Amino acid sequence: MKAEVVAVGTELLLGQIANTNAQWISERLAEIGVDVLHHQAVGDNVPRIADAIRLARFRADVVIVTGGLGPTQDDVTRDALAEVAGVPLERRLEIAELIREKFARAEREMPESNLVQADVPAGARTITPDRGTAPGIVLEVEGSRIYALPGVPAEMREMMEGTLLPELAAAAGPATIVSRAVRCVGIAESRVAELLDDLFRSSANPTVAYLAGGGEVRVRLTAKAASAEEAGALLVPFVEHVVARLGDFVTSISDEELEEVVGRLLRAAGKTIACGESLTGGSLSARLARSPGASEYLLGSAVCYDAETKRSVLGVSPETIDGPGVVSRECAAEMATGARKLFGADIAVSLTGAAGPEPHEGAPPGTVWVGLDAGEIVHQRRIRAFGDREMVVRFSEQAGLDLVRRLLEGRPLPQTEPVVH
Amino acid sequence: MKAEVVAVGTELLLGQIANTNAQWISERLAEIGVDVLHHQAVGDNVPRIADAIRLARFRADVVIVTGGLGPTQDDVTRDALAEVAGVPLERRLEIAELIREKFARAEREMPESNLVQADVPAGARTITPDRGTAPGIVLEVEGSRIYALPGVPAEMREMMEGTLLPELAAAAGPATIVSRAVRCVGIAESRVAELLDDLFRSSANPTVAYLAGGGEVRVRLTAKAASAEEAGALLVPFVEHVVARLGDFVTSISDEELEEVVGRLLRAAGKTIACGESLTGGSLSARLARSPGASEYLLGSAVCYDAETKRSVLGVSPETIDGPGVVSRECAAEMATGARKLFGADIAVSLTGAAGPEPHEGAPPGTVWVGLDAGEIVHQRRIRAFGDREMVVRFSEQAGLDLVRRLLEGRPLPQTEPVVH
Repeated sequence: MKAEVVAVGTELLLGQIANTNAQWISERLAEIGVDVLHHQAVGDNVPRIADAIRLARFRADVVIVTGGLGPTQDDVTRDALAEVAGVPLERRLEIAELIREKFARAEREMPESNLVQADVPAGARTITPDRGTAPGIVLEVEGSRIYALPGVPAEMREMMEGTLLPELAAAAGPATIVSRAVRCVGIAESRVAELLDDLFRSSANPTVAYLAGGGEVRVRLTAKAASAEEAGALLVPFVEHVVARLGDFVTSISDEELEEVVGRLLRAAGKTIACGESLTGGSLSARLARSPGASEYLLGSAVCYDAETKRSVLGVSPETIDGPGVVSRECAAEMATGARKLFGADIAVSLTGAAGPEPHEGAPPGTVWVGLDAGEIVHQRRIRAFGDREMVVRFSEQAGLDLVRRLLEGRPLPQTEPVVH
Repeated sequence: MKAEVVAVGTELLLGQIANTNAQWISERLAEIGVDVLHHQAVGDNVPRIADAIRLARFRADVVIVTGGLGPTQDDVTRDALAEVAGVPLERRLEIAELIREKFARAEREMPESNLVQADVPAGARTITPDRGTAPGIVLEVEGSRIYALPGVPAEMREMMEGTLLPELAAAAGPATIVSRAVRCVGIAESRVAELLDDLFRSSANPTVAYLAGGGEVRVRLTAKAASAEEAGALLVPFVEHVVARLGDFVTSISDEELEEVVGRLLRAAGKTIACGESLTGGSLSARLARSPGASEYLLGSAVCYDAETKRSVLGVSPETIDGPGVVSRECAAEMATGARKLFGADIAVSLTGAAGPEPHEGAPPGTVWVGLDAGEIVHQRRIRAFGDREMVVRFSEQAGLDLVRRLLEGRPLPQTEPVVH
């Protein structure tokens, strides 16, 4: 079964809000195995809404329209539905009564104009609203079905969950879509695709998609089957193959954020962590603090933005500062050791480099040294990150967190080499 | 001039991401007076992408396609463009060279498959990427213009701002929309609207819109006129009225981030700053580090996530830790003083509290103490922040930064009172 989502509202076309209704509806439809091949968004204009619905009807079995069912002059979805069905609007007295009651119960005076919400294309079925005052409208036009729902997200969701999803799940039959996301850090998207190409070239189910960003690559595997159990079972061997091919680069097989992975590993190992940060300004530590319960393993971070505080707070030696400088292997090593001692942590990780846009002590923007001090194991590496200040900071965080992940998982620690994405 | 946005990506149709690119693009186009009448979203499928572009071409003067320009097998926008234009793809050696150079500069090995990003429909113009490796593509097909941009938001925005918006603004001619945003912190959106209601009730040009979020309220004034100068001049008296009514709550009249405002004030005063952080985990300091040139005023931050490091690193007294505890006026005061001494800063700001979801030392989630030590002036206040962990952290950052702003602007420092939004 194919469905199409038509969102109505000039505010979408002015960019005042994002079309999150289309996202939410699509996600729910995927879960019950209904394919969505197109989204459309149009403004509050009868001919354009009618055209969009006609096009959607031509391409899909089910059309879901959201928005334009309110009581004001710019709410014209009802008129467009009547035009598509070639029928007049008729006032439904039971809905008018319901709207009156809702206002009375809230002890509010009802503007008469509100009763336009009781106008429905002749012959349509309605969905009684619980939260709002706009009924949903269900029309059958020449073998295809059109659902029109309010644009207010909570009112739309109520009708999706109460009416549409059960009806469509019953009609679509026993088909469910299940997705799994494998995340990896330190490897280019194109390299990931090369390594997995043959696995998925011949597979229509599950399918694979790649999404790169924020210093990592997500490999999303999606399977379709009669039940969630069956779809999940279809995924298992593919997830295993993906993990086997991507090896040490895999950070999570269940779509966890990297800081969650590191937090889970620290908790399991009963280890504490501290950071010594320069160019990231505290954002590495803030990532680690994001999970509830982070106080079990995170002791703190010394953010030392200038050379003098690297010396006075973290104990970086004058020889390092005056010699190789603050963007150096030596400085990263001493910052990690200093942070470990200052906080009394089991593991410390440090980041120092040039965030840009200007070079820092002669190092070009994106040059970053990562240091690790875990007592018996100390390690440093250099990365070169792409992009603007924000991207360099994000890549640096990823490199720092990934070094801790590799340490705790007993994987090889990468040498100085580029971070890839 | 009419434009249409076609977003490409199966992840949109599966509801894995929202179509925020269409929103951002539409907002920018509205600002230069370009009308957007439709959005479409389609999956990674050549005939469907080509059909969507053809339909958009039929309805609009300019088509903006986003997504599907990456290096993997599911990136097929290039092929669809070639099909629409009826021309073959050709490899552009100068782009291939640019991609090779980007990899070489980052000292990364380039998978050969990456070079598909240098394939462009014959006769097309390209937009050289700064951040990423995918060039933008500009095609003229029978009198209409098609722009194809990468789907990665930062890469898309770079090309919108560098190429599309200037080109379209020039073509759209002398109807310009100019917006100014006044930002304020510490006051509720509904209160802002009440204070400004009569100013805008009768004004059709400029118009006003309120946007609350992230611990601040933005008042956006938008004027339309024949030139940017005229539109700007229309705005001036309205901005003055807004500032007069909102008073000490106004943080910026030019849409600056609060950390930019604080950075600008610190630079002007020639003062340095340091932080003592607990629940924010380093994100206060990371906000201050975000601006290029932050090293002129930011010395660092001591993130002390547990009680013991608050004592050992920041010198919080055992009497405070065992007495009123770490969520207290006393602890905030001692953390600020400790951070000021540790880093030798002119001004130090501290944050300690319960981020949630659990209470911390008996303090309910959202209870946060903010401390300030500027030598002769010391101050503490308590706030109660709404919402989940992330929101509490954000509100805390805002309260800390706003205290420094008020200090540097010589405005009254707020007493313990709720943060409103």
